[in-house]
Amino acid sequence: MSLNASEFRDIDPGERILMGPGPSDVPRRVLQAMSAPCIGHLDPAFLAIMDETQQLLRFVFQTENAMTIPVSGTGSAGMETCFVNLVEPGDEVLVCVHGVFGTRMCDIVTRLGGELIRVDGEWGRAVDPQQVRDAVKGRRPKVLAVVHAETSTGVCQPLDDLAAISKETGALFLVDTVTSLGGMNVALDKMGIDAVYSGTQKCLSCPPGLSPISFSEAAQKALDDRKGPVVSWYLDMSMVKDYWGGDRKYHHTAPINMIYALREALRIVAEEGLETRFTRHRSNHLALVAGVEAMGLAMLVPENERLPMLNTVRIPEGAADLKVRQTLLKEFGLEVGGGLGALAGKVWRVGLMGHASTRRNVFVFLSALETILKTQGVKVNAGALEAAAAAYDAA
Amino acid sequence: MSLNASEFRDIDPGERILMGPGPSDVPRRVLQAMSAPCIGHLDPAFLAIMDETQQLLRFVFQTENAMTIPVSGTGSAGMETCFVNLVEPGDEVLVCVHGVFGTRMCDIVTRLGGELIRVDGEWGRAVDPQQVRDAVKGRRPKVLAVVHAETSTGVCQPLDDLAAISKETGALFLVDTVTSLGGMNVALDKMGIDAVYSGTQKCLSCPPGLSPISFSEAAQKALDDRKGPVVSWYLDMSMVKDYWGGDRKYHHTAPINMIYALREALRIVAEEGLETRFTRHRSNHLALVAGVEAMGLAMLVPENERLPMLNTVRIPEGAADLKVRQTLLKEFGLEVGGGLGALAGKVWRVGLMGHASTRRNVFVFLSALETILKTQGVKVNAGALEAAAAAYDAA
Repeated sequence: MSLNASEFRDIDPGERILMGPGPSDVPRRVLQAMSAPCIGHLDPAFLAIMDETQQLLRFVFQTENAMTIPVSGTGSAGMETCFVNLVEPGDEVLVCVHGVFGTRMCDIVTRLGGELIRVDGEWGRAVDPQQVRDAVKGRRPKVLAVVHAETSTGVCQPLDDLAAISKETGALFLVDTVTSLGGMNVALDKMGIDAVYSGTQKCLSCPPGLSPISFSEAAQKALDDRKGPVVSWYLDMSMVKDYWGGDRKYHHTAPINMIYALREALRIVAEEGLETRFTRHRSNHLALVAGVEAMGLAMLVPENERLPMLNTVRIPEGAADLKVRQTLLKEFGLEVGGGLGALAGKVWRVGLMGHASTRRNVFVFLSALETILKTQGVKVNAGALEAAAAAYDAA
Repeated sequence: MSLNASEFRDIDPGERILMGPGPSDVPRRVLQAMSAPCIGHLDPAFLAIMDETQQLLRFVFQTENAMTIPVSGTGSAGMETCFVNLVEPGDEVLVCVHGVFGTRMCDIVTRLGGELIRVDGEWGRAVDPQQVRDAVKGRRPKVLAVVHAETSTGVCQPLDDLAAISKETGALFLVDTVTSLGGMNVALDKMGIDAVYSGTQKCLSCPPGLSPISFSEAAQKALDDRKGPVVSWYLDMSMVKDYWGGDRKYHHTAPINMIYALREALRIVAEEGLETRFTRHRSNHLALVAGVEAMGLAMLVPENERLPMLNTVRIPEGAADLKVRQTLLKEFGLEVGGGLGALAGKVWRVGLMGHASTRRNVFVFLSALETILKTQGVKVNAGALEAAAAAYDAA
């Protein structure tokens, strides 16, 4: 317990380029907004900031949903918020699993006493809607849940068919957009999504700590019609909405400075424009893939199922996973992610998220990786940078 | 959904002095640390920051508890974390209620299916240990819970007798130190506290968003011995501890920049020293009370049960509660809190927390309040500032 205060130095996290699975690089503007003086959570000036944050969130989610707020926790808290509010013991919930985060959904449903209908797809592929159709035959699940952008595999799950199945069966369509929001099209109202959560530290390029969520009217009604109370007091949206809504009824103290940061990050998204932003993510992704493939490396995910913001690159034979990542971090200040779960040791996860999705980062990564692999004696074809440049020219 | 990005201006929360029930004023050093570049949550540089934050937390909590971490949510998430990990359906839990936050504990226990033994004390007074003794007669509650510093009433709850009762009955002693930590003595190991949570935005003077918690070995064992899983995935300490502990097993992404801020806030506490800090809180409190009473106003709480960091002042006859607070905010940039629950409209809650517990703030508050009350035609005795000055001289 005794402690010498002078042993603790000033914060100095070093100079990094964040190309892992998140957090992504945070723009200076966001860090500056976050460091504005903290004020009271019921201060009229802060209430205005809350309103603006909600407006900006609705814009980014492309929705008119009244209940659109940032939950006071990370993306995982957002996942829990959606399930804990919509699922009661005995409720049937269908979860599509094609990576770590689908598995986590199952864990949460089970803890809540929900009846899990689990549809397992291949890790590294999108889930086949036909499997889901088969699984719901003769059943009426209350919720159908899927991860839009599986951060563990780099797979983009098409949502149209699953939205249609949800509608046909009367299920609420619950989608994890932690990694997709702000980097690719997430249009709640148009896509028929009823409940959604995201994270701040991926394509929004805000520090981690908040989880934007949104509930459609149908999801709101399901919450209103619950038989019992929400088991979590902290995440009970029937109370949180009265704080964020017109009544400003005290629930918990909002994380003031994190909300400053989120508002600024969303403002940057709005200034760039959604379409421009999505196009930027896509073109940097295509260039990175072109470079990686030119080197002779392979992507985990088939071309038409790849995410634009998270690239899973198969670790080539002879390359030492951890050593490569450590060298990238130490020699180049560049962070990429390792594989999670079943993919540990098999892939690198290379993020191009939000502020970090830049041509510069694509080139830094390709050149650094090429150098390191060669040092390790891994055979690498020439021409990665040329291939990336050509991909930009073609775009 | 359509939105004009240029309508959203730069963050400018204004110049405030935060003398409400929290958040309190955040030192510039903390805001600066918070705005350091965000790095990866598994980056070795961040892992070192996590370790240091835990060391500093143990110092401030005066404990050797291994499981001492900041929960990734606000103080209310900390409350939920303690109960959700330690209480299973059917477990008996005794809760002392003498304000809003005790009531909230009851709500949480009930949601979790715990058998609530509720001991109601008077709002504005400490709970009488004899009432608790009577309530546990012939029973063996698993947890005995109380709020140390009731932010809704300004009451300090003595802990010695309740710790003894917990020990005698074999109950885990769970204490809310949201408002007390960093402003008065909270010595976990010495006081026999088994589970504790706090907030960052009170006497630690860090922005809201994290909840420091600590579990004794007995609490840790109760968690290990659970019959069923913790209903909350996000707050399940059996997993969170593997992330914060040696294994660094991925659970959720830590709120990186908030942890920078907390580390810096704790470092400031350590530099000042606990005893010096507690004395500062006490002397500013005594001066404020001397000034308030010299004006002819009355405190809600009897002298020996008052908190040093939160002063509940009875609203004098003829004073318009909201008007007074709004004028303080508009004309003086000074925030104080209104009453909560049963005390709404009856008291003002005047915080002197952490960085905001200063002689300057005491004088600003007293002089501003005097002026405003006189303007409203409320009779106010002369001599408040002199009385406050005399209190400092006597200290």
